[in-house]
Amino acid sequence: MKVYLDNNATTKLDPSAYELMQPYLSEHYGNPNSLHQWGSATHAPLREAMDKLYAGLGARDIDDIIITSCATESINWVLKSIYFDYILGKDRNEVIISGVEHPAVSMAAFFLKSLGVKVIDLPVNSEGLCSVDDLKSVISEKTALVNVMWANNETGMIFPIKELAELSHEYGALFHTDATQAVGKIKVDFNAAGVDLASFSAHKFHGPKGVGGLYIKKGIKLSPLLHGGEHMGGRRSGTLNVAGIVAMGEALRIANLMLDYEDSHIKRLRDKLEDAILVLPDTSVVGSRTNRVPNTILASIKGVEGEAMLWDLNKNGIAASTGSACASEDLESNPIMEAIGAENDLAHTALRLSLSRFNTEEEIDYASEQIKLATERLRAISSTYAYIPKAYRKGN
Amino acid sequence: MKVYLDNNATTKLDPSAYELMQPYLSEHYGNPNSLHQWGSATHAPLREAMDKLYAGLGARDIDDIIITSCATESINWVLKSIYFDYILGKDRNEVIISGVEHPAVSMAAFFLKSLGVKVIDLPVNSEGLCSVDDLKSVISEKTALVNVMWANNETGMIFPIKELAELSHEYGALFHTDATQAVGKIKVDFNAAGVDLASFSAHKFHGPKGVGGLYIKKGIKLSPLLHGGEHMGGRRSGTLNVAGIVAMGEALRIANLMLDYEDSHIKRLRDKLEDAILVLPDTSVVGSRTNRVPNTILASIKGVEGEAMLWDLNKNGIAASTGSACASEDLESNPIMEAIGAENDLAHTALRLSLSRFNTEEEIDYASEQIKLATERLRAISSTYAYIPKAYRKGN
Repeated sequence: MKVYLDNNATTKLDPSAYELMQPYLSEHYGNPNSLHQWGSATHAPLREAMDKLYAGLGARDIDDIIITSCATESINWVLKSIYFDYILGKDRNEVIISGVEHPAVSMAAFFLKSLGVKVIDLPVNSEGLCSVDDLKSVISEKTALVNVMWANNETGMIFPIKELAELSHEYGALFHTDATQAVGKIKVDFNAAGVDLASFSAHKFHGPKGVGGLYIKKGIKLSPLLHGGEHMGGRRSGTLNVAGIVAMGEALRIANLMLDYEDSHIKRLRDKLEDAILVLPDTSVVGSRTNRVPNTILASIKGVEGEAMLWDLNKNGIAASTGSACASEDLESNPIMEAIGAENDLAHTALRLSLSRFNTEEEIDYASEQIKLATERLRAISSTYAYIPKAYRKGN
Repeated sequence: MKVYLDNNATTKLDPSAYELMQPYLSEHYGNPNSLHQWGSATHAPLREAMDKLYAGLGARDIDDIIITSCATESINWVLKSIYFDYILGKDRNEVIISGVEHPAVSMAAFFLKSLGVKVIDLPVNSEGLCSVDDLKSVISEKTALVNVMWANNETGMIFPIKELAELSHEYGALFHTDATQAVGKIKVDFNAAGVDLASFSAHKFHGPKGVGGLYIKKGIKLSPLLHGGEHMGGRRSGTLNVAGIVAMGEALRIANLMLDYEDSHIKRLRDKLEDAILVLPDTSVVGSRTNRVPNTILASIKGVEGEAMLWDLNKNGIAASTGSACASEDLESNPIMEAIGAENDLAHTALRLSLSRFNTEEEIDYASEQIKLATERLRAISSTYAYIPKAYRKGN
């Protein structure tokens, strides 16, 4: 059996989105900026896709949703243009980010640091969350931007975005959220949340790779990251990826239709899998279930190296992760585990399991069993974990 | 009949590239950075695609080809990182660009100007070209970057890249070429040309939209534009667009296989179409045929507004352009025509026709006839052109 439980790394393209994008890869290949019928043939589908994005993300007609190649581009755009538009030669010189941001945020912030910007990391608690009070203790009139993700990619924990945005605005700072791991998993309404800027990637909600977006609230100045032709009202140049945009719109429409299903069925499967892990001795999961996206588990299995677990599961057809795919080629400890203050040996035992609506109950039962077996196998050969098989404990 | 003659705006995706990318849009949806089999299933096809790019573009194993979302991203990356790495706080403060660069270059350069960089426009001659002597007259020890496109998007004229790169290096400047309109149309060998950096977009050579690349010669420092995870050796972050990369590699392989065909058959059709235009009174074409990519014609038809011609041709099933698609939604005069010193009324008569290997002789004959008919119709109602029908001239 094959069980894909790495949906926070990337997702299967929704079959309806796949079908809908095909004509724009084949016969309708025009450039939307062209004045002839090959160009105009793309206008209605693009408009429909944009309508789906506006409706699905809570953007108003007067706001901008600008198509980018991925959330990483959107995030880099925000941080770098904030530097040029709101910091360089101005009175504000601080950027605040949560201590558990995706590397796209933390590395872009690190780059700003090299330009003299003061970057403040918001500490997180044992659930990997930071609160409004945490922000209050560091924000000031010098803060140009507060940047806190909507949901964490590894723990799935949901941040108090509305409250953080409100506080940021009290200090005259802009608020950007990396909503990549929230969109399609929980209801996301950028306007209701009061954020100024929000980044997302299609391939995290069953859209294709290579396309994403940036929500920009009406009136927010932001110099382009990609200058050039007058695409997207001059905010982001480059020929529009028509097929990608069409598929992203459809993927979001369907993901939003499935939110109730996500919050009931997928959450039930997730909880079932989580229970199956927690019933094993010396295991734990980061964060409460109520304040978490419905598909994610970040578990720690004492004595079991995350990578060893991955290989074992992989051999048995199961895809999981030790954390963010963006860093998973390194054999390093999980940075989120470190941020929440886990001991070093625990930080090496991280196992992220992330479900989707394409997972079945049968798959979850199979994965539960395989995780149990792998835990037993790996603990038996662990140099740091004294595993006593049940049979021995019973004295047999 | 439908005739697509706007291949410099965008191209039809090659059927073989289309077919090859499909599995990576559907069943093989893994993130290449994931450690499990869904991830590793993408490694061989990615490696094959990268091999095709390295072979097809004349990159050495020690050079980098970094995947981006399009040439516009690559170009913005070059200009902005040159600023951070070679200008900010350094002795060099000048960037030289040709006077006929794509807006991605000229607008990114304009942005650098706002940061205090001196941007020097290289003037072009009546063929829209600049020479090594032109560069020699402005380059200095203050020059950080010389940026000249390989082939112009509107005229198709080919620049002396190797010689320009050599001269740039004599002054210690880096040389970047926007090769977007050259790749797939003529032989392009980045290493042999001696360029340091080169940008390209898949959708200009029958690859898909939303994917492109930047060639970076070994040893050239260039800070990332997109910081984040350790994708592409840390040079460009963001989850890899596997399907797009696979299709781009295949599209380049096929385009290069077809170069001889391009240089014989397509050139013959192009010349036939060009002859059919030039036989009409008061028409001209920019640039010699020998130093031009084989598929492009930038014509001027006196007394005929470019846009009016487009609409007429479009009504009859023919796609053409008044110039770059990236600016074609504006009713402005053609900036290339202006750069080469055309009179204002001529600059409004630009008609760009760009062929591909998918055009047939029958299509070209049909287009020739329709251009002739449209010219007659539009001159008959022109306020600026006194058209005397042949019949009247003969006294009938």
